[in-house]
Amino acid sequence: MNKLINDPAGVVADALRGIAAAHPDLRVDHEQRLVVRGDAPVRGKVGLVSGGGSGHEPLHAGFVGPGMLDAACAGEIFTSPVPDQMVAATRAVDGGAGVLHIVKNYTGDVMNFEMAAELAETEVVAVVVDDDVAVQDSLYTAGRRGVGVTVLLEKITGAAADQGRPLTEVAAVARRVNENGRSMGVALTSCTVPAAGRPTFDLPGGEMELGIGIHGEPGRRRVPLAPAAEVAEMLVTPILADLDFTGGGVIAFVNGMGATPLIELYVMFNEVAAILEKAGVAVARALVGPYITSLDMAGCSVTLLRADDEILSLWDAPVRTPALRWGA
Amino acid sequence: MNKLINDPAGVVADALRGIAAAHPDLRVDHEQRLVVRGDAPVRGKVGLVSGGGSGHEPLHAGFVGPGMLDAACAGEIFTSPVPDQMVAATRAVDGGAGVLHIVKNYTGDVMNFEMAAELAETEVVAVVVDDDVAVQDSLYTAGRRGVGVTVLLEKITGAAADQGRPLTEVAAVARRVNENGRSMGVALTSCTVPAAGRPTFDLPGGEMELGIGIHGEPGRRRVPLAPAAEVAEMLVTPILADLDFTGGGVIAFVNGMGATPLIELYVMFNEVAAILEKAGVAVARALVGPYITSLDMAGCSVTLLRADDEILSLWDAPVRTPALRWGA
Repeated sequence: MNKLINDPAGVVADALRGIAAAHPDLRVDHEQRLVVRGDAPVRGKVGLVSGGGSGHEPLHAGFVGPGMLDAACAGEIFTSPVPDQMVAATRAVDGGAGVLHIVKNYTGDVMNFEMAAELAETEVVAVVVDDDVAVQDSLYTAGRRGVGVTVLLEKITGAAADQGRPLTEVAAVARRVNENGRSMGVALTSCTVPAAGRPTFDLPGGEMELGIGIHGEPGRRRVPLAPAAEVAEMLVTPILADLDFTGGGVIAFVNGMGATPLIELYVMFNEVAAILEKAGVAVARALVGPYITSLDMAGCSVTLLRADDEILSLWDAPVRTPALRWGA
Repeated sequence: MNKLINDPAGVVADALRGIAAAHPDLRVDHEQRLVVRGDAPVRGKVGLVSGGGSGHEPLHAGFVGPGMLDAACAGEIFTSPVPDQMVAATRAVDGGAGVLHIVKNYTGDVMNFEMAAELAETEVVAVVVDDDVAVQDSLYTAGRRGVGVTVLLEKITGAAADQGRPLTEVAAVARRVNENGRSMGVALTSCTVPAAGRPTFDLPGGEMELGIGIHGEPGRRRVPLAPAAEVAEMLVTPILADLDFTGGGVIAFVNGMGATPLIELYVMFNEVAAILEKAGVAVARALVGPYITSLDMAGCSVTLLRADDEILSLWDAPVRTPALRWGA
């Protein structure tokens, strides 16, 4: 197992200590495994809480800061955080305007966030992200999985909360982002969970798994490795078939799964942009890099989000987090 | 070869097309393989040009923009750009205040940038970065190699140029950064150059290459895989032995080699920070992520830069590039 770790059981705790050491403007609760904005709670602002299993970094802790999340709960690798963590996060960011829970659609996350909302004794609204067009149901999930749109949604909704909008409006923005975004991914290798010590699944050399989930759960089918142009077609075609993206701009996001270097992501972005141009879809904004990963999996995902002027202006608003930062 | 590419011979051209599609505020010269600030040349500002072999993304093209580089020249994978490219870049960014060439210490890069400076017919000063403490001479290099400090130097020197300082002063800042920075890296796997189609070197399972270069060139020695705490000691101890970092703050940079996910880099950062604390070295700023990579190599490098108030204020100044962006 070629990993830069100590004890496989201690990876999440060690990484949280690293986040605390690198980002003194964040507050890390090592017992509850929370990463919180240093100035939380922000009086009068809707608090934004997300979280999920670890192994997808920078999601979610890397998106905590002004203009994005107020807190992130870190579960064990690929394992939902527990309701106690979510309750602690909710209370830590409750500035009197209520709290939004941003929940990726995995059964454990949804159940635990529901329980936490009941226990939190404050006003909570939950929005579930389910943007993955690859499969309807999968290991861990009823319905569609929550993947790349989560990154865009956390940024855009964070900007809406920053403007002082009330909880119902912030939640409406989040739902609108989810409804207008779609994703699909591909794996060229498996990932290896440290505690397991061996690849999560077998992927023979020369094959790739189309429609992979971010925990290595099965996708649509195994296909032979193909040139980037064909891989882009295999990812973008199902997305465009699922939602009409013409007649307005999109935020186009090519995401690395963890072990795929940036040069390949730009090769993929070029192919995605060419397909979109042919389909009459205008790229209004781009994001290229590893933002929602699956440990050391090689591969990528493509996310498209229909973006009107309001969405674009929220996207462009200042943000100051470890992994996304501009204008602040 | 598990790569998201088309023709192995076209990777650099395809990636440059992807950069152009994703970042409309940059100007990409596909014939000369240059990435240039959209508003270049900036009248009265020293122009900053860097470049080198491709395969280290986001270095250098990802660092082009206000507050950092004015232009980057992209060579073939792990191959120096040619003098013609460097001359074209120099002319494209010459705003009348002269041009600084930032050159990583590899024989081909140094020779070609020297030739370009002679041919450019404008005032050029070159600064050579040679921060790698691992080995004195190596494949491709006489003396020490230029690695992680390059990223910090491009940011800090870019801020100095933005303040309107003259070329001699901007070059002095660059030299001061180089003199005050040291790096060392480790590989857990080889990288694979697309045109070669097989790993650059053999690294048996259970071993790592300590002091690796960013092209996979040999380091100090092969050692058994070790826990992150020990790997951090193996990287930081030679750095601290080479330069006195006590009595002031440092910018601490834990860099991913391309295929190592962020969670592991934070585990490493935690260990590096603990060693520095014990050694009486204060971390003033941190950078964690893949910024100077080696294709799909797994591993990391550690860079420390002694930083006084001037360096820190230049580091904190606004920057707006694809890969480093804040305050703008």
